[in-house]
Amino acid sequence: MNNFEYCNPVRIVFGKGQIARLAELIPKDARILMTYGGGSIKSNGVYDQVIKALEGFDVAEFAGIEPNPQYSTLMKAVEIVKEKKINFLLSVGGGSTLDGTKFIAAAAEYEGNEPWDILEKGAPVKKAIPIGDVITLPATGSEMNCLAVISKKETKEKLAFGAPAVFPKFSIIDPEVTFSLPIRQVANGIADTFVHVVEQYVTHPQNAPLQDRQAEAILLALVDEAPKVFTDPKNYETRANLFWMATQALNGWLNVGVAQCWATHNIGHELTAQTGVDHGRSLALVLPGVWRSQRKEKGEKIAQLGRRVFGIVESDLDKAVDATIDATKNFFSSLGIIATRKEYGVTDEIVQAIANLIDSRGVKFGDLQNIDGAKIIEIMNLCD
Amino acid sequence: MNNFEYCNPVRIVFGKGQIARLAELIPKDARILMTYGGGSIKSNGVYDQVIKALEGFDVAEFAGIEPNPQYSTLMKAVEIVKEKKINFLLSVGGGSTLDGTKFIAAAAEYEGNEPWDILEKGAPVKKAIPIGDVITLPATGSEMNCLAVISKKETKEKLAFGAPAVFPKFSIIDPEVTFSLPIRQVANGIADTFVHVVEQYVTHPQNAPLQDRQAEAILLALVDEAPKVFTDPKNYETRANLFWMATQALNGWLNVGVAQCWATHNIGHELTAQTGVDHGRSLALVLPGVWRSQRKEKGEKIAQLGRRVFGIVESDLDKAVDATIDATKNFFSSLGIIATRKEYGVTDEIVQAIANLIDSRGVKFGDLQNIDGAKIIEIMNLCD
Repeated sequence: MNNFEYCNPVRIVFGKGQIARLAELIPKDARILMTYGGGSIKSNGVYDQVIKALEGFDVAEFAGIEPNPQYSTLMKAVEIVKEKKINFLLSVGGGSTLDGTKFIAAAAEYEGNEPWDILEKGAPVKKAIPIGDVITLPATGSEMNCLAVISKKETKEKLAFGAPAVFPKFSIIDPEVTFSLPIRQVANGIADTFVHVVEQYVTHPQNAPLQDRQAEAILLALVDEAPKVFTDPKNYETRANLFWMATQALNGWLNVGVAQCWATHNIGHELTAQTGVDHGRSLALVLPGVWRSQRKEKGEKIAQLGRRVFGIVESDLDKAVDATIDATKNFFSSLGIIATRKEYGVTDEIVQAIANLIDSRGVKFGDLQNIDGAKIIEIMNLCD
Repeated sequence: MNNFEYCNPVRIVFGKGQIARLAELIPKDARILMTYGGGSIKSNGVYDQVIKALEGFDVAEFAGIEPNPQYSTLMKAVEIVKEKKINFLLSVGGGSTLDGTKFIAAAAEYEGNEPWDILEKGAPVKKAIPIGDVITLPATGSEMNCLAVISKKETKEKLAFGAPAVFPKFSIIDPEVTFSLPIRQVANGIADTFVHVVEQYVTHPQNAPLQDRQAEAILLALVDEAPKVFTDPKNYETRANLFWMATQALNGWLNVGVAQCWATHNIGHELTAQTGVDHGRSLALVLPGVWRSQRKEKGEKIAQLGRRVFGIVESDLDKAVDATIDATKNFFSSLGIIATRKEYGVTDEIVQAIANLIDSRGVKFGDLQNIDGAKIIEIMNLCD
């Protein structure tokens, strides 16, 4: 196991009726900016619950944070934060709203001229406005990490940053708010959860049996539980279980002391930036290509996943790898995700453009840092 | 899943050579009291590493915290804390030293007359002296929780308390410091880890598949990894893996939103208070008795453990339960733990005394709160 440091101070407040507890979780004298997205929180009752819980507080609102939150939108919120001397940000919505709010929190306290440098140049985030959230979509795990992914449509960029200063002070997870989610978002969230786990697990071999088993624990539970949400969407227990899996999939436990391969996310982000494909669906498309291209490096772990999670009994390594990739694709299909390049309009030209972009940035992806532009083309040619 | 709250702010600093980082983890102006036990840290080099790392700091020492840390001993440390205006406690040792240090931290800031009330009457711990630790024994998980167990030999009591104020600010886990541990302590720590997990997992049925799988993850990894430490005790990877399992077994993840049954620990503590039996060994003795007595309530979970962890294929529930209890006992035996009442001198008189004590306190143990004095006698009569 590699040396590591781990600290995750987020207070998780989980369960039915917990939005009402906002008043005890936010400092009484806070000047709050409540951030949200396109208004689904108004139709599903979450907005009303929040406003009721915050009676007597000083609350301003900032609506319109997009899926794949846009830099230009978020910078408008930063202006409001400065104007109104906001000292608490309350994100109400899914991972995009929360990711966007983390960026607002960091950008408002950023001392340089150009907050985009946080994303593009890794400029350090020394402090941030405190954040709390009501998270409404099980998917990104943003509610229990200090990561965020932000987009700039002008340059077709989608980049990530992370900093302890943007850990939420608290996250309220009420599984009941997910009853009204469109089934497409539920499916995307399950795919996102699955891929978060495997990107911290399917690497070259590691000697970390607990981390392996903990990754498999989420996958085993997810594969068992996912079908139930489609047949019985109003079942609270299923919604609660799936939400907790999404949170646990990206709160940092799984990757302590071990290698990670984020190539699927890295390439998926570029695909979304270029084509607008849903995040979860971009992952379902790219993952099989990454595994096929990296079967030499990752074969042992792919087969272990297949054997322990999908019950594959094939003893031959190569055949076990193929069977695991098939089982993974079948799992995505069972969610209603048909992930092909054609389906998402991923042309050779787009793949070439992404390859050029990555090479021009001088970065390489993967646990062995061996995925460059040429490898991205190889990977995408191995996708269906 | 039940509603829950979770927040664990401990900074884990894990790996080789990490004791040297103490100087960056403790505030420069701290007046430190370094607490430790019987002096093994002097023979294994840990004391020297700590003293070297703390060069230039203001450090006093308090030695002699016992296994099963004693109230009378700890209260002497509280005096020193007050006299010297100590504002940081550094625990260097195993779980007993750290548990004792947590109590010192709470008692020094306690506003009532009698700090024992924290244990006996559940008096609230509103604040505590900040704690950091170098943990040297994989067993109690104390390095990543806010719990402590304290003893009073005069009255043969061994009681627990927990309070967020005593979460360590940081815990340094250097697996190399475990190379010099006596094999008996290694075995006890593995048994303790195993039982911590099952007491958060083997209850009446719950609908929490992720928590189940996460408990099984630790058990699966533990059962695989444990034998290696006996055949290859200088293997760093094995030591690192086992330490991380011990930490993860009691940091609060496993029990969020689900029932817990701490009857084995509750009874085990009483046995240790009465007979002095090692904590880990008391658990190995009591657990089969609890499961045999509660096979109606816990049968499904016991069988699930057997099937998923020990590979038991028996389809009949009763037979699967028996096979799981046998497999668990065999696991303890494989650690060199021969757990019988005779071995530990647990007479009928002692069992009766414990039953009387528990009834006199008016408490009942177990996830269903149905284990009273009479049940304790039944359980102990079902132990080997």
